[in-house]
Amino acid sequence: MYSEFIDKFGAKIIDDNILKRIEEISGEKPHKFLRRGIFYAHRDFEKILDMYDRGEEFYLYTGRGPSNNLHIGHIIPFEFTAYLQRIFNVKVVIQITDDEKYFTRDLDQETINQYADDNIIQIMKTGFIPEKTFIFKNMEYIGTLYHNICRIQKILKLVTVGKTFGFIGNNDQDELKITDKDINMGAVSFCPIQMAPCFSSSFPDFFGKNSKLMCLIPCAIDQDPYFRLVRDIAEKLGENKPAMIYSKFIPSLTSNEKMSSSVHNTAIFITDDMNIVKKKIYASLSGGGDTKELHRKNGANLEVDVAYQYLSILIDNDDELVEITDKYKSGVMLTGELKNRTIDVVMDVMERYK
Amino acid sequence: MYSEFIDKFGAKIIDDNILKRIEEISGEKPHKFLRRGIFYAHRDFEKILDMYDRGEEFYLYTGRGPSNNLHIGHIIPFEFTAYLQRIFNVKVVIQITDDEKYFTRDLDQETINQYADDNIIQIMKTGFIPEKTFIFKNMEYIGTLYHNICRIQKILKLVTVGKTFGFIGNNDQDELKITDKDINMGAVSFCPIQMAPCFSSSFPDFFGKNSKLMCLIPCAIDQDPYFRLVRDIAEKLGENKPAMIYSKFIPSLTSNEKMSSSVHNTAIFITDDMNIVKKKIYASLSGGGDTKELHRKNGANLEVDVAYQYLSILIDNDDELVEITDKYKSGVMLTGELKNRTIDVVMDVMERYK
Repeated sequence: MYSEFIDKFGAKIIDDNILKRIEEISGEKPHKFLRRGIFYAHRDFEKILDMYDRGEEFYLYTGRGPSNNLHIGHIIPFEFTAYLQRIFNVKVVIQITDDEKYFTRDLDQETINQYADDNIIQIMKTGFIPEKTFIFKNMEYIGTLYHNICRIQKILKLVTVGKTFGFIGNNDQDELKITDKDINMGAVSFCPIQMAPCFSSSFPDFFGKNSKLMCLIPCAIDQDPYFRLVRDIAEKLGENKPAMIYSKFIPSLTSNEKMSSSVHNTAIFITDDMNIVKKKIYASLSGGGDTKELHRKNGANLEVDVAYQYLSILIDNDDELVEITDKYKSGVMLTGELKNRTIDVVMDVMERYK
Repeated sequence: MYSEFIDKFGAKIIDDNILKRIEEISGEKPHKFLRRGIFYAHRDFEKILDMYDRGEEFYLYTGRGPSNNLHIGHIIPFEFTAYLQRIFNVKVVIQITDDEKYFTRDLDQETINQYADDNIIQIMKTGFIPEKTFIFKNMEYIGTLYHNICRIQKILKLVTVGKTFGFIGNNDQDELKITDKDINMGAVSFCPIQMAPCFSSSFPDFFGKNSKLMCLIPCAIDQDPYFRLVRDIAEKLGENKPAMIYSKFIPSLTSNEKMSSSVHNTAIFITDDMNIVKKKIYASLSGGGDTKELHRKNGANLEVDVAYQYLSILIDNDDELVEITDKYKSGVMLTGELKNRTIDVVMDVMERYK
């Protein structure tokens, strides 16, 4: 999937040259999510680095659908965006897509709004520079966004959006057929709303009126369709194409499949207390041997081991990660030891959200 | 067409009983547009009259797409709405659909906005009670409307909207096929925006927060699809179904076909001066005889006579209308005389817009 994304959709790998440039800019080694290939691909990120070198202004744009509290997987893009903000010293806009979650979930506006407000407080604790960060809920901010939404809506065809998001036409014979006959108008209309913040003129109070700054979007690869569409129409609108920097999905953190269904909540929410975290991690699917003897003999299967995956993403120290990886894989380190270390690492990450 | 609208879509004729009730309420004979069958059909208008009798509050909603200056045909619904406001003493909301015109015309936002502002000034001269009238441009007001737009978008399916407005599925075989492959996202997304003002909670500052007043919509029959959809979903949203009162199209005033193409502007704009009005009416297609002799002998064809149609809609005095109709039809009155009287009538109507 991750290489298909590069080959098929024309994104580029974040290579050593880019990592080196980031190291030069920041004066420190690149963020662990870069070092470990969590953020692994991009479009036009080199252009952003060139702009930085020339002292030109740009901004960051990311977002969040507030259908629940944040879990530990959700903070990865925010932590990374806050990192980019810090090293580039730029402004950030964060879109809270309360409207989209309302359209696509069985939740009322009040419930979504409560999640949105809670999420905003949590997101800001990730480490954004408050005076350089504008975080907004669509339901509140749409009035200001609307002139750009309209510009996008005017040149974007229903058929293009339908094909991009898979609700129109899956083959040549039926290329104009609605394939999701129950799709509601909200889900259909939403696409330009996520596209509009790619143009800095959507934020006249934050960037100045008629601003035309270039935008860099840190996001997971599943959000690419929105931003590919923006790139397709940007020129026609006299706007800059946004640049993107893409993360892999974090399945061990965001999917439920690998955690025991006996645990009430299958993801670790950043508001969970230590006892809950312990319970969830102890109950998580292990890649260790079934018995101590088998484990010592065969070692652990890291691919399916949820606790190991948490740890491998979140731990700060590269050397310790290498050491743990070796020891756990070879069976020298036991599952219980691994899980205890993971609990410490997770609790460290969650400290700032208390 | 007008009887099909009654038979096929279940609207009702405005009958003598309704006219009598309006006369009782207003203490004067019903408006000329009612007497002459320009406003001729309705849904639930009797319910509105019952509410009035019981002293219950309701409001009026109408609108305007600002793609040009107002011409004389456009003022008909506004004059009628202002009349209803006066006899019922109720609030009015007027939606200026600057967004929709931007999506569907080859005009930029600045041009549309200028038309919108000019239109608003002109509309208010129609005779609305200023302190009971709220007129708004979608591009400015969408932020407040949006919570209701979202409620509508969530329960309204793309397929339903597409079928209602003719861009999806024209027959059973292709019932899910997009039939307008170039339709843009704006035109698709607009429908709920015209629907939202049917719920008084869209105007918290005007009606109070969480208001649930019933709405009466004076409109031409081509706007019915929007409001039929609202009626279909209102109950599910815990809202009142709006009532409607429908006018016929005014083809002699709004269509270009019947006016000479040698005239620069084919419609009479309410800002035209007397010389322009004269020129346009003199140049308009006549139903009179080709020669004075033939006219005296055969009389005029009223059906195709543009000046007569203007006059028959706009003149105040019923007796004079009957007299002119008889005389012109029979050939006693000449085309020149008819046109001169029409010019006077039109200039009278336009007086208030100076």
